[in-house]
Amino acid sequence: MEVKLNADVLTDNNAAAAHNRGEFSKNNILVVNLMSSPGAGKTTILEETVRKLSIKYRIGVIEGDLATERDADRIRALGAKAIQINTHGGCHLDARMVAKILPEFDLNEIDIMFIENVGNLVCPSGYDLGQHHKVAVLSVPEGNDKIPKYPTMFRRTELVLLNKVDLLPYLDFNVEEAISDLNGLNPESKLLTISARTGEGFNSWIQWIEGAFEQCKQPNQ
Amino acid sequence: MEVKLNADVLTDNNAAAAHNRGEFSKNNILVVNLMSSPGAGKTTILEETVRKLSIKYRIGVIEGDLATERDADRIRALGAKAIQINTHGGCHLDARMVAKILPEFDLNEIDIMFIENVGNLVCPSGYDLGQHHKVAVLSVPEGNDKIPKYPTMFRRTELVLLNKVDLLPYLDFNVEEAISDLNGLNPESKLLTISARTGEGFNSWIQWIEGAFEQCKQPNQ
Repeated sequence: MEVKLNADVLTDNNAAAAHNRGEFSKNNILVVNLMSSPGAGKTTILEETVRKLSIKYRIGVIEGDLATERDADRIRALGAKAIQINTHGGCHLDARMVAKILPEFDLNEIDIMFIENVGNLVCPSGYDLGQHHKVAVLSVPEGNDKIPKYPTMFRRTELVLLNKVDLLPYLDFNVEEAISDLNGLNPESKLLTISARTGEGFNSWIQWIEGAFEQCKQPNQ
Repeated sequence: MEVKLNADVLTDNNAAAAHNRGEFSKNNILVVNLMSSPGAGKTTILEETVRKLSIKYRIGVIEGDLATERDADRIRALGAKAIQINTHGGCHLDARMVAKILPEFDLNEIDIMFIENVGNLVCPSGYDLGQHHKVAVLSVPEGNDKIPKYPTMFRRTELVLLNKVDLLPYLDFNVEEAISDLNGLNPESKLLTISARTGEGFNSWIQWIEGAFEQCKQPNQ
């Protein structure tokens, strides 16, 4: 199975993505599609992000996984609305899956929506879900070589959160090299270092989201 | 793109896998298909494995990646024959890709062949490459929930190498829970704890390979 997609699949997906984007715009919702390898820390980042943002914003979360409700349960425990999509073997979310569950949210009541994609550094990158921004999480234990080895992902993301920087003292990871590799693939892309475990770096990430939220509302102001 | 495969794709793949298996058997080669998330440590495990096994066995390695020759270069630096397959966006190896590069090896001159699949905990699990054994690597920083969340992978592997156990003191990972989750999915599956960084646990892994090699030769004895 390849990420070289046939035209029909992409046309169907793009139509559904356009529908989703329309729904989000109508309701002034900022939407972020969060992608990474399994275990890079997407859900733990989201937990801390929801805690911090809930003070000012109404948050919705769509959780993508092959199986289980575990991630949605972790977000619900924080009081945010979360809907789990189980792909039953599918290696990424697509826009139709998202369109199908959107009516389960009261979109009027949401300011910022996070979509946590299936843990996979390959497949999710090719699918527009109707988000405003694609953010990739890379974690220190995965190693420096992941950016050049998974170019389809890192070429298409605007922001990379380098997570688990609390483990830098125990591992060989060169942050400068990661930034240089990333800029080689996509000069527009930024990298922020964070630790969902210690909270380090969250201020910059929260500021980035708030900036994106303000920008996303502008056309209607 | 889904892991629910259509019949044609699987039929083509299985025919190529049977061809590969025939080539391997004819030459008494044990073949292990190594799968994991990106950054779980497959290549580092292979480096140490090649170092240890090269004393007694002739080793071949097939490296699968979206892009770059980096992993094959790391194996070649140890003096073993390694062929890199670049999938150019494909999220897994398939048996035809393996069949295509097999003539680049002198199969008479190999005892044990490792196939390192594309770093992906979803797609590779559905494809028979003609291997004798499927081994999954899970790493401590990925977290305890990966076994239940990626059941298609862990249901189909006979052995799980839990890597990076040198990081256990710094992270919340419950090895007993991982073993219990694994046995719930596949009672035949075993878990070995290792650290490619410190060498811990490699004796058991090497013994497992040597046992598999002896077993694989038996039909011809």
